[in-house]
Amino acid sequence: MNQAPGFYRYKIGDITLTALNDGFGKRPLEGFVRNAELADVKKAMAEAFLPQDALNITFTTLVIQHGGKLTLIDTGNGDSGAPTSGTWMANFKAAGFDPKDVSSVVFSHFHGDHINGFRLKDGTAVFPNAEVMVPAAEWAFWMDDAKMSAAPEGMKGAFAGVRRVFGPVAKDVKQFEAGKELLPGLTPIAAPGHTPGHTVFALTSGNGKLMIMSDTTNHPALFVRNPDWSAVFDMDGPQAAATRRKLLDMVSAERMQVAFYHAPFPATGFIAKDGNGFEMVPVQWSTAL
Amino acid sequence: MNQAPGFYRYKIGDITLTALNDGFGKRPLEGFVRNAELADVKKAMAEAFLPQDALNITFTTLVIQHGGKLTLIDTGNGDSGAPTSGTWMANFKAAGFDPKDVSSVVFSHFHGDHINGFRLKDGTAVFPNAEVMVPAAEWAFWMDDAKMSAAPEGMKGAFAGVRRVFGPVAKDVKQFEAGKELLPGLTPIAAPGHTPGHTVFALTSGNGKLMIMSDTTNHPALFVRNPDWSAVFDMDGPQAAATRRKLLDMVSAERMQVAFYHAPFPATGFIAKDGNGFEMVPVQWSTAL
Repeated sequence: MNQAPGFYRYKIGDITLTALNDGFGKRPLEGFVRNAELADVKKAMAEAFLPQDALNITFTTLVIQHGGKLTLIDTGNGDSGAPTSGTWMANFKAAGFDPKDVSSVVFSHFHGDHINGFRLKDGTAVFPNAEVMVPAAEWAFWMDDAKMSAAPEGMKGAFAGVRRVFGPVAKDVKQFEAGKELLPGLTPIAAPGHTPGHTVFALTSGNGKLMIMSDTTNHPALFVRNPDWSAVFDMDGPQAAATRRKLLDMVSAERMQVAFYHAPFPATGFIAKDGNGFEMVPVQWSTAL
Repeated sequence: MNQAPGFYRYKIGDITLTALNDGFGKRPLEGFVRNAELADVKKAMAEAFLPQDALNITFTTLVIQHGGKLTLIDTGNGDSGAPTSGTWMANFKAAGFDPKDVSSVVFSHFHGDHINGFRLKDGTAVFPNAEVMVPAAEWAFWMDDAKMSAAPEGMKGAFAGVRRVFGPVAKDVKQFEAGKELLPGLTPIAAPGHTPGHTVFALTSGNGKLMIMSDTTNHPALFVRNPDWSAVFDMDGPQAAATRRKLLDMVSAERMQVAFYHAPFPATGFIAKDGNGFEMVPVQWSTAL
């Protein structure tokens, strides 16, 4: 009793996007939001008709097809995540793609659920022909030995994970700055707070525009509804909240389509202002392209 | 460039449901809502981030698996609908089902998009081994020759369609009354207005409960948000609106999961009260069963 393969295609101008499901990780609610009472978090979950004991955080990467080239935004958990995750490669292949054909891999930031799919535990490079593009600010932070030494014990694993994934290709990695077009139609925008170099991306083609929101939220039911709440994964909570509010204000004012890494599959829709917060309106699933 | 097969499984207690996508039909907005100004309808579309020139009405049937038996609720457009519809059989097979294994086909009402999948244009019976269960009130209306003769010219085709589909099996059709359990856990509830015998179904298993809402709405963005609006497909507009409001009140008060025939795929979620209307909150797509 399987589900259908977890891929969903949509168009932005001439560009075809494919959202790829990488499963989910279950997270206890207790302690998950730093600056809200558990009762309020449970209330937000109930309002979204979600369970009140735990949060299933979903993972959805993007494939961008443009002029015959394949670009990935983030690479999922690979074989390093929760047992309920790691479905990415099966869905990527079910969508008709081959890892050898990926020409660019662009990373939004260096958390394990975004980078581990780039290199299996045994060291295998999954996308042998891809150039690797990373936010310069993210590289500077995570590859800094002094920062690693100074990090609390619980964060040292994340530093080690970044080195495991990127170490073998360190000299070939292309570091990019925000604000300059990186690939045709794709422009990174600095969105710090979640991590120091956390990046979102504006994708434009003709009249089409998509804001790839990366980890601006860990779940819309909590952090789009309550943009000032801060998840434990936000390294700088207040900065992440300020970034989140700024981005949500912008995409709601411009009625721009958005894609989140951590929204329910297919993880794309629109943002409406609602009271002091916002609401995510998923796209209408379409069989047409 | 295909989409993934359009099936989605979920559990209600011990019962596995499979939502099956049958594509969509495009409908001009002008004249579609009988008792609302076009400007207000366009505004509702804009609030849902949907196009303002036309409405894509989607079709989603349900397969119920219970104790090794396969029951269908409605059968899609078959080969009689819009060119963008009729994907049902491909999705049914992709989900691993065989039409020969269907033991019961239950109809909510007799509009073509619900019944035409039961018999192809060439007369082929698609589910040769299934018992056929229909609302007695619906049968009484559509099979009544006097009602057919008295019907306006534009409705005669619908009467003829019902006879085309059910004529060859008329003597074997099991007519059911609302309020009595029809199959294990499945109880029809009269929901007249959309058609005279329009029926919804309560499905229960253990603590799980699903309200199968049939055509209580033709699109949640219009008729869940504005339950007093009436689509041209509602044969008795005021009665359909009263039924709709009563059902939406009930499922929102009880926080019961719902499935609609005409909601964006996978067409299941929950209903929250919102002002004078309601809002549909889709389920979080899950890879787990």
